[in-house]
Amino acid sequence: MKAKIIITPKKAVVDPQGKTVRSALEQMGHQGIKAVHVGKYLEIELDGTDKETARQMLDEACHRFLSNPVIEDYRLEIE
Amino acid sequence: MKAKIIITPKKAVVDPQGKTVRSALEQMGHQGIKAVHVGKYLEIELDGTDKETARQMLDEACHRFLSNPVIEDYRLEIE
Repeated sequence: MKAKIIITPKKAVVDPQGKTVRSALEQMGHQGIKAVHVGKYLEIELDGTDKETARQMLDEACHRFLSNPVIEDYRLEIE
Repeated sequence: MKAKIIITPKKAVVDPQGKTVRSALEQMGHQGIKAVHVGKYLEIELDGTDKETARQMLDEACHRFLSNPVIEDYRLEIE
């Protein structure tokens, strides 16, 4: 079983990494870029087949230490 | 138009961040975690509607400076 977690800064939070990438792309001549958001991506390989248990466990882990819920959102997908 | 880029370390490359997250999850009592891979996630908002041009532009940007092709793979999706 594989879980994919995407952690992104909340819309209201300043994203200096995203701004840097955006201006770098512009300076390299790429036009038409409105915004860039930079986040983290985690791929977790799990034993077992019970998606619901895995979701609960990873939801708790995301909330407690993989993301910072004050400034970040996360999306969790289990395959 | 929105592009999503996921950059992950190649399988053969040591991923110390992934190993750290894996052992942290274990120490917090989460069982059955086989492996964790940590990568970067970029969301790019673009003007225009020509997906093919956007794909070419971002493919080049990924290869030239968003990822390090020696140690990283990237996946590019355009919506």
